[in-house]
Amino acid sequence: MFRVTRRYRFAASHRLHCAQLSDERNQQLYGKCNNPYGHGHNYEVEVSAWGPLNASGRAVDAERLDELVNRQVLEPFGHRNLNADVKSFEHVVPTSENLAVEICRRLKENWSGAFPGEWPKLDRVRIAETARNIFEVKAHEIE
Amino acid sequence: MFRVTRRYRFAASHRLHCAQLSDERNQQLYGKCNNPYGHGHNYEVEVSAWGPLNASGRAVDAERLDELVNRQVLEPFGHRNLNADVKSFEHVVPTSENLAVEICRRLKENWSGAFPGEWPKLDRVRIAETARNIFEVKAHEIE
Amino acid sequence: MFRVTRRYRFAASHRLHCAQLSDERNQQLYGKCNNPYGHGHNYEVEVSAWGPLNASGRAVDAERLDELVNRQVLEPFGHRNLNADVKSFEHVVPTSENLAVEICRRLKENWSGAFPGEWPKLDRVRIAETARNIFEVKAHEIE
Amino acid sequence: MFRVTRRYRFAASHRLHCAQLSDERNQQLYGKCNNPYGHGHNYEVEVSAWGPLNASGRAVDAERLDELVNRQVLEPFGHRNLNADVKSFEHVVPTSENLAVEICRRLKENWSGAFPGEWPKLDRVRIAETARNIFEVKAHEIE
Amino acid sequence: MFRVTRRYRFAASHRLHCAQLSDERNQQLYGKCNNPYGHGHNYEVEVSAWGPLNASGRAVDAERLDELVNRQVLEPFGHRNLNADVKSFEHVVPTSENLAVEICRRLKENWSGAFPGEWPKLDRVRIAETARNIFEVKAHEIE
Amino acid sequence: MFRVTRRYRFAASHRLHCAQLSDERNQQLYGKCNNPYGHGHNYEVEVSAWGPLNASGRAVDAERLDELVNRQVLEPFGHRNLNADVKSFEHVVPTSENLAVEICRRLKENWSGAFPGEWPKLDRVRIAETARNIFEVKAHEIE
Repeated sequence: MFRVTRRYRFAASHRLHCAQLSDERNQQLYGKCNNPYGHGHNYEVEVSAWGPLNASGRAVDAERLDELVNRQVLEPFGHRNLNADVKSFEHVVPTSENLAVEICRRLKENWSGAFPGEWPKLDRVRIAETARNIFEVKAHEIE
Repeated sequence: MFRVTRRYRFAASHRLHCAQLSDERNQQLYGKCNNPYGHGHNYEVEVSAWGPLNASGRAVDAERLDELVNRQVLEPFGHRNLNADVKSFEHVVPTSENLAVEICRRLKENWSGAFPGEWPKLDRVRIAETARNIFEVKAHEIE
Repeated sequence: MFRVTRRYRFAASHRLHCAQLSDERNQQLYGKCNNPYGHGHNYEVEVSAWGPLNASGRAVDAERLDELVNRQVLEPFGHRNLNADVKSFEHVVPTSENLAVEICRRLKENWSGAFPGEWPKLDRVRIAETARNIFEVKAHEIE
Repeated sequence: MFRVTRRYRFAASHRLHCAQLSDERNQQLYGKCNNPYGHGHNYEVEVSAWGPLNASGRAVDAERLDELVNRQVLEPFGHRNLNADVKSFEHVVPTSENLAVEICRRLKENWSGAFPGEWPKLDRVRIAETARNIFEVKAHEIE
Repeated sequence: MFRVTRRYRFAASHRLHCAQLSDERNQQLYGKCNNPYGHGHNYEVEVSAWGPLNASGRAVDAERLDELVNRQVLEPFGHRNLNADVKSFEHVVPTSENLAVEICRRLKENWSGAFPGEWPKLDRVRIAETARNIFEVKAHEIE
Repeated sequence: MFRVTRRYRFAASHRLHCAQLSDERNQQLYGKCNNPYGHGHNYEVEVSAWGPLNASGRAVDAERLDELVNRQVLEPFGHRNLNADVKSFEHVVPTSENLAVEICRRLKENWSGAFPGEWPKLDRVRIAETARNIFEVKAHEIE
């Protein structure tokens, strides 16, 4: 059994703001991340999958994984404003936690299209928002 | 003579768009960076200064430099949208080149307040927009 | 369930020396790390906690974690000599393993002051002594 | 219980090619990695071991681990062509997955010579082929 | 005046060997880098250009630079054996110094095709063979 | 003409304190770096030399440079307390600026023993005290 991880990068902007809460409460909860016009990051996303080695000595077909991540993550999120451009964040605050959940959910939902066999399985998604903040969710924790 | 460099980081968002040009021309010039709702980066800024060693074995007072960079750069730009929040980019496209010029100009204008003596002098400002793109301007090139 | 990791840095010095052992034995055990006047490192500390997402889309309140780590780790250890300045290492050799145990113990003991609810829980502490040496302990392994 | 990780680096070349398959199939499977004269990488290898702290406050004797990794990995693989110079890859395609298996197998087979006691145990081997591709195998998964 | 740097990566293999010299002399000169079947690296190439800012706030058109570097460097060198696959190294030892010269020469020769105006100019090429070895040549030093 | 840079690392401790000054003045000048028992760093040292390519396609003999840096820098400074163990800092405060001067002076004084010909010449010494602080001196500035 093998774990393979690939790293991807995209740049996006976001604002942490919850429409149901007052401006004061939002400011208190999210601080500078609540500034009205938003800010942004170079997100680094690690996608890990695991499985046995196949006959050609590989555990994960990197080309298929790249194609899946490009279509589901890098194209819809890259160079975008997460609040304004991504429908999933219309009613969900785009914290890095929610972003990791959303990325993991998209990969999980479309996994069998890219990897039709029993293996590899999606293991986890990890996002570094900055070099100091890392957010990680296991695929089996996501419904 | 010594060159001392300190690295700072801030997260901000921007949109590359020139109001005087048509939408098509903007799209052609700036590509994905012209997306209407903007995107963002973790900017890494290197500020270099140079001078002789003083009696305490230092070339640059790091505390003063930090105070200057905080006041002129990190506070006004950090967790902000450069187009909407920073007056200097009202009529100037916030490319990383223009951002470097603006940072360098601010430090140069306020340098003598922080460092009243002949030394150290501001040498250059260098911005890494992502790990792959680096922009660098010499202080003496800025008027 | 989410795992959130934050990275912190501090510079400190130490000497690996065990008072109960002979000088020869100390030299044999710790080599250059036993040099009488000590040496130092830029320690990088990763603190990981885990828990469910709350209503504001966060798993760990970063401000509270920073405040806890500042008070318990960065202030008492940063710019210090671990052997001479930190009481915990009066009779304990400040290897990076023992340093990780001590940091983990301090965070665990003071965790409920910072995070009074059921979640998040402290998961693990990881120390990079240099870019080549990493030491990791799980909070539940520490009494 | 402690986990200690040490990072090692070596430069080697390889070609992904399976003698039992046709040239077309090899090209399809391995793409540019099948180019006839091979290519190379700066491999970064992380070896993790775990165990309790001994009386001198250490979990793993770094000198012994270095000696083992030097003899079993860095000397036979460093500055070598994996296909032509390493007998283990005579009939096994040197993908990074197979390379990780081979490194893990060598360390496991020779572990008790270097660490004769019950502890530490080899935990896992992790290889970064490039900054974007990471391959990881647990020692207990290897026979 | 601005300096813009972009970073590129490619993996290749090489052998340091000079056909005019004896095997003993080659071994003495190049050590492990002379091993008969070669070895490889993940080369990191920095290309720096400089020039004034144009009306759209840019000093270098990144798309054109990428296209030039892809065509002249990444495609012919990436996933290749420099000795066997690149004609320029038929009679020239592919040390990283010579590799930097060759890359710089190719960019310089084809520069005016990509950048027909007076600006930007190619400034320098810098290659990191490993994280510890950096080789740098100025464009004006190359004929 | 070529510039070649090699990176070295060593861990050491130091205290910033000037015996001629009062304790208050020392505290004011050096802040936490004046703490009585010292602290430490993982210093990263870059040594750059330049020269023409020789017949074997190299600008600097890496083995000789390593031997010189080992003997003059890594052995006397590594795992040492700079104030107590290095005679050069008996009356000189071991700021990173003075450390860079001292390293550059040692390399310059012993350069012709390692490199007896006209080339390569020592260009500069650069020290990263932490990832955020870089100190750089040109060899020709040192007497």
